[in-house]
Formats: sequence, structure tokens, C-alpha cells
Amino acid sequence: MLKVSVISSAELVKDWELWGKTAIAVDVLRATTTIVAAFDAGCTECYPATSPDEARAMRRGLGDGALLGGERKAQPLEGFDLGNSPLEYTADRVAGRQLVITTSNGTAAIRRTGRARIGLIASLRNARATAEAAWTLQRDLVILCAGTGGRFSLEDTVGAGMIVDYLLKTARQRLALNDLATAAHDLCNLYGHRLLELLQLSAHGQYLVRLGHGADLEFCARANVSRLVPVYAAGVIRPGPVAP
Amino acid sequence: MLKVSVISSAELVKDWELWGKTAIAVDVLRATTTIVAAFDAGCTECYPATSPDEARAMRRGLGDGALLGGERKAQPLEGFDLGNSPLEYTADRVAGRQLVITTSNGTAAIRRTGRARIGLIASLRNARATAEAAWTLQRDLVILCAGTGGRFSLEDTVGAGMIVDYLLKTARQRLALNDLATAAHDLCNLYGHRLLELLQLSAHGQYLVRLGHGADLEFCARANVSRLVPVYAAGVIRPGPVAP
Repeated sequence: MLKVSVISSAELVKDWELWGKTAIAVDVLRATTTIVAAFDAGCTECYPATSPDEARAMRRGLGDGALLGGERKAQPLEGFDLGNSPLEYTADRVAGRQLVITTSNGTAAIRRTGRARIGLIASLRNARATAEAAWTLQRDLVILCAGTGGRFSLEDTVGAGMIVDYLLKTARQRLALNDLATAAHDLCNLYGHRLLELLQLSAHGQYLVRLGHGADLEFCARANVSRLVPVYAAGVIRPGPVAP
Repeated sequence: MLKVSVISSAELVKDWELWGKTAIAVDVLRATTTIVAAFDAGCTECYPATSPDEARAMRRGLGDGALLGGERKAQPLEGFDLGNSPLEYTADRVAGRQLVITTSNGTAAIRRTGRARIGLIASLRNARATAEAAWTLQRDLVILCAGTGGRFSLEDTVGAGMIVDYLLKTARQRLALNDLATAAHDLCNLYGHRLLELLQLSAHGQYLVRLGHGADLEFCARANVSRLVPVYAAGVIRPGPVAP
């Protein structure tokens, strides 16, 4: 029986729980949404860094053609080309470019997927496409919510729940869900048709609105508008394809 | 505005997050249910120990009149008087007796409440009584789910949600819920009227059924049948009263 686990914060997962599996990183507000947006806008490669200093070092390695993006406390970083608003990642900024990105929770979750057989990057915007790709792979699945400061976040859990929902509807056999996968599916049923309201209800969404990023919430809330499934392997995220 | 936070696993909370607040430990399957049952059956005091060795040492300190109870991997421990099934904690075994108890997740969560201004012990059986007591105290509230091995557990989250539900219905002002408190309330609305089914759906409930403890689930699922609100302070749990 295929196992589907949702983990509330990537740092809670042990490496051995990922070995041989498919892992999906979810950070709806906003890292994984931003990365999907960057690839949709023609970005060629994205390097996730766990700290601003590591990001600067990576950019030095890649050369001046590479862009530097990200945030701490949802604020842009000094000397960076871009913040963490997906709205900044337009074709005229990122098409044909490499990107180095560092965010408070999301990039650590993405790096953690590197311990799995394959790591995928999901947001509400590409949840369906990611679920389809994960189903094709037919391996046990661990969905790593980025969470906020090590804690449960509502929007990432609902994003995970959208993937669980697709798998439950597609699988002909039963799936073995962990408790948070069950709850994520329940919460997806509750919030799946009012995602903007969900983001406005979430603690991090409210924080972003206070900082003037309300428009980001509208962008992040649009479900299944992208068919891209970014893949993380050997330190780099590429815009697919997902190969078994 | 009164803050109400739910934490998926007690080990994720920082000490400073508890200072001056009311903390409630919830371990529906089965530690906090068992402790409430023990007090309902006339137990006088309960000492939560974090390891079997510490429990044995505590009992030596208390003398032979004290009972030793608990589990690891839901199994009874060698040389202990009682396991962790609430059904064992009958008046003829525990009335008038002191108890030392150690369990895999629950007793650690209880000990953690000792960093708060006051620590309370809740299960489904005394959720309403605990919520009423917590409301009387009028302090910011942190509900510590025991979880399972550091992870989200469905039944503890719904137990927390029952407390949140009471507070939302009683408070005339708005409450500041963290994301997991919002989700716990949603899950309480979904499962509150089918609690036995909930426990049978949860991973730890299924594990207990496989071990032959199905009757425990029925006992643990009965909501609001106890008016007791055990209080943890200075290393000891007593069967109330809750004093501000």
C-alpha cells in the first residue's frame, strides 16, 4: 500500500524517512510559489540557499549573470536583486537567467527533499500538476510543509491536502495516510474552494498583508494555473521534466 | 486580545512561550485520559516521570504505598503495577493511593506545562471542564498536544479543538488563534460528534486496536463525562481545584 505522509515542518523529518521516496516541498507563502512563478517566467535554473551569505557565495560562483532573490522576515535583503514576492519574478527580470534564492523556511524544506529519491516543488498554483507527477512515480510520498519557524502552517497544510486529495481520487487501491495527511485532506475539503480567504486567515498571510503584500496572497491563492513541476536534484531546481 | 495557541508536539514549545500563561497538556490516547480516570477513581496524587528509571526512583522516594504505571510502545513495563490503559485504573486499584506514571509522549508534555503559570491536564473526557477552568483564569493559553514521536496526532488536535471551540463560544471578544488552533477548531467541527470513529481513524488508535486495546478507544472517546481538572505544579498532579 502506497504511503502518503505530510510533515508539518521540514526540520522534523529524519533523513532515513526520505530515502528512496518522492518528497515534495510546499511553501505556499511564498517560496515555492515564487520559484514556480520564476520558471513560468522563463528562469532556467534555481539554486536554493539556506542563508543570505550562502546565497551570495553561490552567486559569486555562478557569475554576474545570475540573479539573487529572497527574504528574511518577509523583507528584501541588502544587495539582492529581488525579494520573495512572486510578482517581481516577471519575464523581463528572470527569462533566460539563473537564480539563487534564500528564504526563511522554504529553501530549507527544498534542500531537505534532496535526501529523497526525487524532490519536487509545489505551491497551490501547480498542486494538481505535482500530484499527477508524484502519482506517476508510484513511490511512497512525503510532503514537507515549510511551516513557519518549525510550526504548523495552515496554508502549507491545505496545499499538501490538495495533493492528497488528487491521490485519493486517482488511486484505485487504499493509501496509507499519516494523521497529518488525513487532517490536510479534511482541511483541503474545507478551504479548497476559498483559498484566498484561507491565506487571509493564516497567520503568515496576515503578516504579509500588514507589510503591504496583499497582492501576493491573490497570486499565491490561484490553484492549478501552472503545469510546471520543478525538480530539485544535486543542488539545483530545474523546471522539469519529472523522470522516474 | 487573549491568545490561544495549539502546539502539535510539546517538545516544539520554547520555555519562554509558556511563562505567565495557562498551559494544557493533551494526550487523548492515552496518558491524560488515564490520569483523569485515576483521579476519578480516587487516586490522590500523580507524579509524571519522563523515563521508566525515573519512575522507579520516584516510587522508591514515595514508598511502597505508591503505584507505578505507564508504558513504552503502548506495552506495560516490567515490574510496574499498572499499564497505560485507563480501564485498569479502577477504584479498587487506585483509590487513596499515590501514583507514579511514565508514558512515551504524554508525561513529557505534562512536565513541560510546569514552565507555565499553571498546568492543566485535559482529555476528551474532561475537555469542557478544562476549557471552563482555563477561561476563568483569563490568561493567554497554550495547548500542548503530546503528539506521537514529535509529530502531529489527529486525536490530540481534535481534543485541543474542543477546548478552542468552548472558548470561541464563550468569549465575547475576539481571540487570537495560531494556525493550528484554527485548524484544530475546524477538525473539532468535523469529528466532534464521531469521536470513536476519529480514534479508530488515527494512526495511534489503529496501533492500539492491533494490540487488543480497542476497549480503551471507547473509553477515551467519551466526551465531557468528567468534571475533574487535574493541575500540575511543582512536580505533582493533583485533582484540582484550579486556583488563579
